[in-house]
Amino acid sequence: MSTECILFVTLIEDARKGRADEFVKLAAKNEGLDVEKLLRLIAKGYVVIPKNVLRDTIPKPIGMYASTKVNVNVGTSIDHVDLDEEKEKVKVAEKFGADAIMDLSSGGNLDEIRRTLMKLTSLPFGTVPVYQAARDCKRVVDIREDEFFKVVEKQAKDGVDFMTIHAGVNKVSVERLKRSKRLLGVVSRGGAIIVGWMIHNDKENPYYADFDYLLEILKTYDVTISLGDAFRPGCLVDVDRVKLTEYVILGELVDKCREYGVQCMVEGPGHVPLDMIETSVKAMKIATENAPLYLLGPLVTDAAAGYDHIAAAIGAAVAGMAGADFICYVTPSEHLGLPTVEDVKEGVIAAKIAAHAADLVKPGQREKAMERDLKMSLARKKLDWKTQFETSFDPEKAESIWKRRRTSSEACSMCGDLCAIKLVESIFQTKEI
Amino acid sequence: MSTECILFVTLIEDARKGRADEFVKLAAKNEGLDVEKLLRLIAKGYVVIPKNVLRDTIPKPIGMYASTKVNVNVGTSIDHVDLDEEKEKVKVAEKFGADAIMDLSSGGNLDEIRRTLMKLTSLPFGTVPVYQAARDCKRVVDIREDEFFKVVEKQAKDGVDFMTIHAGVNKVSVERLKRSKRLLGVVSRGGAIIVGWMIHNDKENPYYADFDYLLEILKTYDVTISLGDAFRPGCLVDVDRVKLTEYVILGELVDKCREYGVQCMVEGPGHVPLDMIETSVKAMKIATENAPLYLLGPLVTDAAAGYDHIAAAIGAAVAGMAGADFICYVTPSEHLGLPTVEDVKEGVIAAKIAAHAADLVKPGQREKAMERDLKMSLARKKLDWKTQFETSFDPEKAESIWKRRRTSSEACSMCGDLCAIKLVESIFQTKEI
Repeated sequence: MSTECILFVTLIEDARKGRADEFVKLAAKNEGLDVEKLLRLIAKGYVVIPKNVLRDTIPKPIGMYASTKVNVNVGTSIDHVDLDEEKEKVKVAEKFGADAIMDLSSGGNLDEIRRTLMKLTSLPFGTVPVYQAARDCKRVVDIREDEFFKVVEKQAKDGVDFMTIHAGVNKVSVERLKRSKRLLGVVSRGGAIIVGWMIHNDKENPYYADFDYLLEILKTYDVTISLGDAFRPGCLVDVDRVKLTEYVILGELVDKCREYGVQCMVEGPGHVPLDMIETSVKAMKIATENAPLYLLGPLVTDAAAGYDHIAAAIGAAVAGMAGADFICYVTPSEHLGLPTVEDVKEGVIAAKIAAHAADLVKPGQREKAMERDLKMSLARKKLDWKTQFETSFDPEKAESIWKRRRTSSEACSMCGDLCAIKLVESIFQTKEI
Repeated sequence: MSTECILFVTLIEDARKGRADEFVKLAAKNEGLDVEKLLRLIAKGYVVIPKNVLRDTIPKPIGMYASTKVNVNVGTSIDHVDLDEEKEKVKVAEKFGADAIMDLSSGGNLDEIRRTLMKLTSLPFGTVPVYQAARDCKRVVDIREDEFFKVVEKQAKDGVDFMTIHAGVNKVSVERLKRSKRLLGVVSRGGAIIVGWMIHNDKENPYYADFDYLLEILKTYDVTISLGDAFRPGCLVDVDRVKLTEYVILGELVDKCREYGVQCMVEGPGHVPLDMIETSVKAMKIATENAPLYLLGPLVTDAAAGYDHIAAAIGAAVAGMAGADFICYVTPSEHLGLPTVEDVKEGVIAAKIAAHAADLVKPGQREKAMERDLKMSLARKKLDWKTQFETSFDPEKAESIWKRRRTSSEACSMCGDLCAIKLVESIFQTKEI
């Protein structure tokens, strides 16, 4: 454990010195934020901008006062390996507004897949290194301790911008899990690998035990750590104190990251009933002292298989309003199988709508977000269909629906001559209809 | 205007006498509510169960402590008349869990369409009679005053269970509308017809001026009135005091309905930013003294054309949590054209998910709603796929996604051998993976 390999000053350290390079200036411009303000937010750890020093990444600030960002997961599984399809998913995700891509591959040649997908996009690129460590062994319980760190370093060298690492799992929280009345236990794949490894080997989680070493590796490449939530509830009744225990431990790790000058965010929910989302988000913000919050879902019902992108959009919008910063999309195939390209499209659009709905009521983003809605509403008033299509989340789909049943009317086929907008316009202008 | 034609005792009058017939008993049973309690809620007007005396309607209680209900609009427009397609929409709506159907047809033979569609379903059936009055004239401003009422009576005689009538528009609110800075003015089709008629003819809204006469007709057939919201905001910036004015007038009309013994509900939003939904719902509940609230959307962004069912699901879930009782579905073709059968399916499922998410946190419905989620989660734990499909909102879709990429694994193609549920099960059971 030496610090000799720390060659770079990290973004957070630069920000603490008040230095803004072109990357940060562009980030501020894109968000409509003042550069000085953004630097202060980064310095405190309230905002992160994932970027590996080896990669030319588009700045996507995540956190307080920044717009709500959307992550898209792609990647193979042991049952389905098709690199071309994964490449297509990355392209579709970017086309429909993804702000980040994570490769969660666990089948096929993982190095090749990751490197290929990273070349396709300049969006922040993330991974969960423990998947590769698990895949390299016959059984997940056989992962060698040094392997946990070697995969992190290998992927960092490839230029990965942010990594989900379940460093918050420890013996204390696993004991609490064992004593809990959880219905579904652990539903986080990375979390389950680590819990399984710990129990089988009767050892502490290497990422927790050697967190300083992990931070050294990450700092060398200025990789942003996303502290994984191994104990996110996998169903509504599993929102419990096991999860709260994890919040607290993650908060302590956030402190360490900030001391080290490593950017960090924290992951959260899962499945959460609608009336507990605000509390969940705010509790995490308290426990982590305003670390940027990266949420999966939350799904507001367990029963929406086939339509979990909608259950997640409901939860994500409410969570965004409460302060969630980064939303992991959910696709219609969640809980059922690996998504297709079409699923990715459906998932990213649903998440973008939720993120936008949140931005419309979020401090720092309201006015900017409202520009889009005002543009749409003005175009509606003028029955300017072209602008309406362009302003939508999926211009091709909007246009095709409109064209499907076109008539000579300048309105749409829903109301035709009884178009309320036309009726009222004509009343106020001519008093004739 | 005589009262001689009032032949029946209405449901609300029966409830006030503490009389529960089989219809009310079945309603209570379906909702998991005590019969006496349900009678008290109906007597006060906090719950309605739409049912025309001439029709054999399934009881679907709407209001306080009842589960959140979903309405599906079907119907032709002047640009697209295809009765077979509308029939198919009714069937699909019912298949995917619609609790009520409204026929909003404005093209073709309206009597034939309505009568045909009503025969297809025993769900509560609703209309907006002024559409037919408007269609029967060359120009909407030419509707004769008595026609406003004749269409109501004709449709009541057909057995229509509930009718949207924009009785709350009056000269005061139209003046306020004229002085307002609204971007989109009136976006309610029925509202626009009435506002146009009033301004052109310089007369009071007949439904407002002769509200007592309207109630007499409705009472004769025990039709539930749904007080239409002519001034619902058509875009986020139009949430304003014009709308608040209407709430107050609608509240006064609710009082009259209750005095007359006519069941009534009140319609609301439109487009509302996420952080104003709770206030909107609660303000309507105050103004109308807990009248059952029937909401369109609310859409949490103006910009989701092509995906408005998702923007509406977000709003509906939040509104449901705040107390909305009855949700009008929105389809992907909202703002763009008349929906197809597939759009109807997408719309009703999205609305059902939102309604269920609300029921999971609603007084009186939490436990009952949670049964479904517990069943799903238990099936997940057991990797019992058949039960998972059956418990979902669209079993065929769920199964087809799962089958798409089947392998020999008992898990799904998302995680395969790294299935968290399997990993953790095996750790706790055998400490081997």
